Amino acid sequence: MAAIAARWSSPARLHPLTRRRLRFSASFSSAMAVPASAGFGWADALRVAGDVGRGDESDLSGYFRKVQICNRGMCANLIPYGITAFKNGTGLLMDGGERCWWRFVEHLRDFHDVFTIVSGNNGSNTVENVSLHSSLRTPEDRTHAIGDVIKSLGEMIPGIRNELYPVTSSYGMPSYFSLERAAAPYFGIKAYGVHMNGYVEKDGQKYLWIGKRSDSKQTYPGMLDHLVAGGLPYGISCKENIIKECEEEAGIPRSVSTNAISVGAISYMDIEGFRYKRDVLFCYDLKLPDDFVPNNEDGEVDSFKLIPVAHAANIIQRTDFFKPNCNLVIIDFLFRHGYINPDCHGYLDLLEGLRSGDCS
Amino acid sequence: MAAIAARWSSPARLHPLTRRRLRFSASFSSAMAVPASAGFGWADALRVAGDVGRGDESDLSGYFRKVQICNRGMCANLIPYGITAFKNGTGLLMDGGERCWWRFVEHLRDFHDVFTIVSGNNGSNTVENVSLHSSLRTPEDRTHAIGDVIKSLGEMIPGIRNELYPVTSSYGMPSYFSLERAAAPYFGIKAYGVHMNGYVEKDGQKYLWIGKRSDSKQTYPGMLDHLVAGGLPYGISCKENIIKECEEEAGIPRSVSTNAISVGAISYMDIEGFRYKRDVLFCYDLKLPDDFVPNNEDGEVDSFKLIPVAHAANIIQRTDFFKPNCNLVIIDFLFRHGYINPDCHGYLDLLEGLRSGDCS
Repeated sequence: MAAIAARWSSPARLHPLTRRRLRFSASFSSAMAVPASAGFGWADALRVAGDVGRGDESDLSGYFRKVQICNRGMCANLIPYGITAFKNGTGLLMDGGERCWWRFVEHLRDFHDVFTIVSGNNGSNTVENVSLHSSLRTPEDRTHAIGDVIKSLGEMIPGIRNELYPVTSSYGMPSYFSLERAAAPYFGIKAYGVHMNGYVEKDGQKYLWIGKRSDSKQTYPGMLDHLVAGGLPYGISCKENIIKECEEEAGIPRSVSTNAISVGAISYMDIEGFRYKRDVLFCYDLKLPDDFVPNNEDGEVDSFKLIPVAHAANIIQRTDFFKPNCNLVIIDFLFRHGYINPDCHGYLDLLEGLRSGDCS
Repeated sequence: MAAIAARWSSPARLHPLTRRRLRFSASFSSAMAVPASAGFGWADALRVAGDVGRGDESDLSGYFRKVQICNRGMCANLIPYGITAFKNGTGLLMDGGERCWWRFVEHLRDFHDVFTIVSGNNGSNTVENVSLHSSLRTPEDRTHAIGDVIKSLGEMIPGIRNELYPVTSSYGMPSYFSLERAAAPYFGIKAYGVHMNGYVEKDGQKYLWIGKRSDSKQTYPGMLDHLVAGGLPYGISCKENIIKECEEEAGIPRSVSTNAISVGAISYMDIEGFRYKRDVLFCYDLKLPDDFVPNNEDGEVDSFKLIPVAHAANIIQRTDFFKPNCNLVIIDFLFRHGYINPDCHGYLDLLEGLRSGDCS
């Protein structure tokens, strides 16, 4: 039980650098730039993309803002109101501050058979300790009980996908239980995904394939996206998942997608409303043949464009057109392919910022 | 003055993950595997290199050991005896524990005009606070005063190179003063370097150019090395430095070396004897023409070999033939080029381990 509670937050892993990094730019924005409807078209994106040479190429501030957007609530003055400590291996210790996310726990109080919530005081704040009820002894028990809670909460957790995510201490470790994908951030549970940049090299210049999400997509409709990305459900390896997503999202046959290479990972921790999103994204690169044209097969992508990497960088720096976490994966690509160089002020801070979350 | 003292260690940047990471392998070795004389030849290295398929390819333990070797003294039970906190912006706070590195400070006590050392107690340990003397107001004053101290210490700091390193809060920030390169780790001052993997791609397979250091080299004689690497002295950009080192170390003309791309950075913190080494290495990749053959021009390299990347990985996993920090830069290469994949147990821990030090 203690171990399960620990999954909800392992405060020892809160990255101390996060505070410093997020202070880098004075213009921290507390509002996430995610319009309900994207409100832009390819023409708008391409206009910004090609507008090269107007800004200072060594100015990384646009990238820093994208890191901040994925790490809201992590700036110095908010941390004391978030998760503070993990106590005696018995559960999750939080204060009773003003954070919206923490107030979600109020909605769990009625489920006496599922959660044990103990209030106390840490000297300066009211603290509460949440753990799963000791009667839930097996992963199946827990999965079933939490599943029932999620059903009971109804519209409080929108966007149910009927897709189970494993709850583990870190990637590859045994699963304590599973829960609905859409519910993971409400319980502060870490989720894993695979994100792939598909690129082409012509005459020594690199181009990225960029997707525009369908306007009817439930999340981030109409926004720009990678060629391929997806969550990592229970029981499938990263490699198999990326191959599956390549097929579904971009019509890339296995003979090509098997050449996708893993290149690292990014992570972030974001608090918004009742959601505490803790994601780790495994990043992949796939170098595609010059003449390859992606073809979406699951209706989730409206269209694709192939644009020079420097143009994609422009869009990231100057707009909020990309789905927020895609920015980070593309910034990682820019680092690895030499588009951001050490002589730019803030290089190392930005590099560290790409793994602001618990990356385990 | 306070700011200068802070440079000697910014404890807020001590990475909390380090403890967990270094606990990953139970077989932590406290002895650095750096023989005075390398004691192996190319034939030995190539024998291990080509011995593919004997080990478990998904076993990353050999890589973890290399991370540990560069981060001695950072395991859980030693951290309390290292640097503990930075107090009130007035200087560097340490305990008076058993760490050899800390005992170096004893040798600074006689320099009353240069250092201010204040003893105290933090409740459970004796602590000492070291800062530069307030009379040293300009960078030039400090450089001169510390330079004199280093001269006075004589053989205590061996390997003087007559190469000045800037002391900054983080990369690219103004220099507080400069000091002799060989002395940086004795004062716990962070140093920066550039390391480059030179590779060739033939028939879809990648090969790394590996150097064997000259037997007469002062540091790590006879050990394996990258194609090109060097410290980052005062007043030169990373890009210019890598171009200069390419020319000197491998005879790579500017027309080729200008294609080297920056790909990220690694960092480590290592305590050995009186030295507390805090390095940040900017990593570069250079894809070379198939027919290129490196040619050392400064006498520091005995010879070069081109070997398949998987063979270099074998050498890292199974031997201590590489200069220790080169292992980390090559492991970073293995990550970025897909030779280590997320389905290997410990993938994320190892990835984080490559930046165990203060990477700023």
